[in-house]
Amino acid sequence: MAEEKDNALMEKIVSLCKRRGFVFQSSEIYGGFNGFWDYGPYGCRMKRAIENLWWHEMVETRDNVEGLDSTIICHPMVWKASGHVDQFSDLMTDCKDCKSRFRVDQMEDPTTCSNCGSKNLTEPREFNLMLQTYVGPVFDDEHKAYLRAETCQPIFVDFNQIRVASRQKLPFGIAQVGKSFRNEINPRNFTFRSREFTQMEMEFFCEEAQGMEFFEYWKEQRINYYKNKLKFKDDFFRIYVHEKLAHYAKAAIDIEVKFPFGWGELEGVHHRGTWDLSQHSKFSGQNLEYMDHDTGRKFMPTCIETSVGLDRTFLAVLANAYDEDKAATQKEGMDEDVRIVLHLPATIAPIQVAVLPLSKKLNENAEKLYKELNEHFRCEFDVTGSIGKRYRRQDEIGTPFCVTFDFESAADNAVTVRHRDSMEQERVSIDSLNKYLQDKINE
Amino acid sequence: MAEEKDNALMEKIVSLCKRRGFVFQSSEIYGGFNGFWDYGPYGCRMKRAIENLWWHEMVETRDNVEGLDSTIICHPMVWKASGHVDQFSDLMTDCKDCKSRFRVDQMEDPTTCSNCGSKNLTEPREFNLMLQTYVGPVFDDEHKAYLRAETCQPIFVDFNQIRVASRQKLPFGIAQVGKSFRNEINPRNFTFRSREFTQMEMEFFCEEAQGMEFFEYWKEQRINYYKNKLKFKDDFFRIYVHEKLAHYAKAAIDIEVKFPFGWGELEGVHHRGTWDLSQHSKFSGQNLEYMDHDTGRKFMPTCIETSVGLDRTFLAVLANAYDEDKAATQKEGMDEDVRIVLHLPATIAPIQVAVLPLSKKLNENAEKLYKELNEHFRCEFDVTGSIGKRYRRQDEIGTPFCVTFDFESAADNAVTVRHRDSMEQERVSIDSLNKYLQDKINE
Repeated sequence: MAEEKDNALMEKIVSLCKRRGFVFQSSEIYGGFNGFWDYGPYGCRMKRAIENLWWHEMVETRDNVEGLDSTIICHPMVWKASGHVDQFSDLMTDCKDCKSRFRVDQMEDPTTCSNCGSKNLTEPREFNLMLQTYVGPVFDDEHKAYLRAETCQPIFVDFNQIRVASRQKLPFGIAQVGKSFRNEINPRNFTFRSREFTQMEMEFFCEEAQGMEFFEYWKEQRINYYKNKLKFKDDFFRIYVHEKLAHYAKAAIDIEVKFPFGWGELEGVHHRGTWDLSQHSKFSGQNLEYMDHDTGRKFMPTCIETSVGLDRTFLAVLANAYDEDKAATQKEGMDEDVRIVLHLPATIAPIQVAVLPLSKKLNENAEKLYKELNEHFRCEFDVTGSIGKRYRRQDEIGTPFCVTFDFESAADNAVTVRHRDSMEQERVSIDSLNKYLQDKINE
Repeated sequence: MAEEKDNALMEKIVSLCKRRGFVFQSSEIYGGFNGFWDYGPYGCRMKRAIENLWWHEMVETRDNVEGLDSTIICHPMVWKASGHVDQFSDLMTDCKDCKSRFRVDQMEDPTTCSNCGSKNLTEPREFNLMLQTYVGPVFDDEHKAYLRAETCQPIFVDFNQIRVASRQKLPFGIAQVGKSFRNEINPRNFTFRSREFTQMEMEFFCEEAQGMEFFEYWKEQRINYYKNKLKFKDDFFRIYVHEKLAHYAKAAIDIEVKFPFGWGELEGVHHRGTWDLSQHSKFSGQNLEYMDHDTGRKFMPTCIETSVGLDRTFLAVLANAYDEDKAATQKEGMDEDVRIVLHLPATIAPIQVAVLPLSKKLNENAEKLYKELNEHFRCEFDVTGSIGKRYRRQDEIGTPFCVTFDFESAADNAVTVRHRDSMEQERVSIDSLNKYLQDKINE
């Protein structure tokens, strides 16, 4: 894991996110709430777009991947079987003098309190990272439940139900997007390590003999996704191969990206063998084996997992897209000025097309065009300030196309399309605008 | 609130939902978990489609409604300010002999234990319906937090942040979709009253003088949505006007629908005055008033709320759509048989188009067509069983259009489109199929 460091880029991203309403602290008027982040208007547009893109790529375009939307709270035995109740924990120590609490692996000197300097510390003990609650009328151990620590466990729990209802045969996968929770002692790096976050996970089930083949397949699929769909630059991501594996795992890689604070895990592709289904078979007493009707053979399916954080993807996309360059300005005494620009892929930009009338006299016709385009794209209509100021505003939120409606537009039935990245402009007829933009967005 | 009763329709819907993988109990292999429901492959397709439809109607097509995606866990003071910590509770009593616990308002005889017959009950006391947890390393009152009981409170808390970042002026709204949690003592009626559910809420802020006008506007908008978008039959829903209002409220209606167990609330449209923003101003010490720059007047905005449950919408849509009629069969000794059919709106049906080759020899060409259609619609390719059996299977999950690829298709470049509701069939050329289906779906 990369180390945290003071970082100008991170500060710029956090500041842009707050200023333009992408992401900001939860409960800010109450002083904020550590480890919780809210997505504002542009943020939730982009977050939804990333989720929909993942869902489209992983579920909608694949006949052999089914979707699931399970509850966040499920039967507590699920987390006993998964190992989370017993093993999902950090080693903690308390200072007996000042009562501060620390994660042992994060202490510079594990024998000294960094708050008061005391050496009077408790023996380190395990602190479970799952958030706990009580379901039902009595607050006792019998009614204790957990907020899910990962979205994949309900996939294993519902495996048989989904297999039967969907009539799928091996190999096939089950995917889920949803919230997970971890009681991080030290949330940090903006949305990278928070206490509430959205995961996008897919478990692909196959015969044991096909395990490595599908591990390689999904690794390649996911790398191509980052290259071609999220447009990550070559030097922005890398593959980390796990050498130390969990006892049940056969292979594991992480896709790491260059976050502002250093390299960090974005996605894991893991060959988990038969571990999860075997555990849930054991703890539930239900046989989750698969019967191959062609061969008559009964066996526990092997599983390949792809697991990625949506909030981390969001942050990675911003880090990959953030740029400052120079652009012409009308500011007094200046020819050009610093331009903040997000080079976002057009498919996930919060605003794909901004419609900008050059004068108030043109507002009515321009708004009509805006309303037509808004049926097909995520659009914004902006009439406030000089056209240069409006371009800057759209650059800063990553809008790939500004459509300027000018005094000739009514006469020649055409508009000027201004491109975010090159700042070039071209004249496009209104009749062909829809198709023109669609083609550009899908490039 | 409608009374629960034995109901054949409910049983049929629950059974269909489980059999076809729409909705089933959470953690079924562990014996289930009361009040929690998972959405399987078809279920999550339809749930996502309903959410997207609502989001499109309420946010994407409106310039004056912004989106929010806030955390489920937020600062605990939010729930103090909203009144949930002190007032969001049910009156409970315990049997001192058998230790059973009851909601007083649900007891047939509030002085007698229905479990053991004892009259030895505790004094009734308040039981808070919010799920609680602890955030951070220590489990004490200082670290207590709540899972949100409704999605609207973070809208009020983030009001100023969103207003400034989005540059919106009154009147404008903020919308959110997400999970909420209530520790219901007695979850019931399938997904109607569960402990974890998804809400879709919108808060519309305006000047006090416009409050009743916007209350009427949103009431009409929402009624039209159910009529025209979800295709609710006239006798399937009704308006309930609240006569007893909360002290701060100016007007309130519920949109009720005819659930299998009786009339039940689906959506509320409520004129909440300045209550929520005033409470959060008071408890946070932050002034949430709005400054009208044209008049220089500063005032607390008035708020109109539209609030609907996504799981309730899902159940209502099924109840409105479920039907049994007669259809031709090839079963021995029978001309016709009972047909289970879901008359779902094409916009939200889990599968919009099924592609069915009439023979295995046609699979390859039919699959090519399927792949093309699947880029534009939610499609399924089904090759298993007789064509009649496949029609029945699609009818049962509400697929509006079955595209049958037959032996003439390759020659005349056309397919047979079979309509779910009328069971009529028509020949459509493959070249015009995409547009044909698009038009039908948008009807």
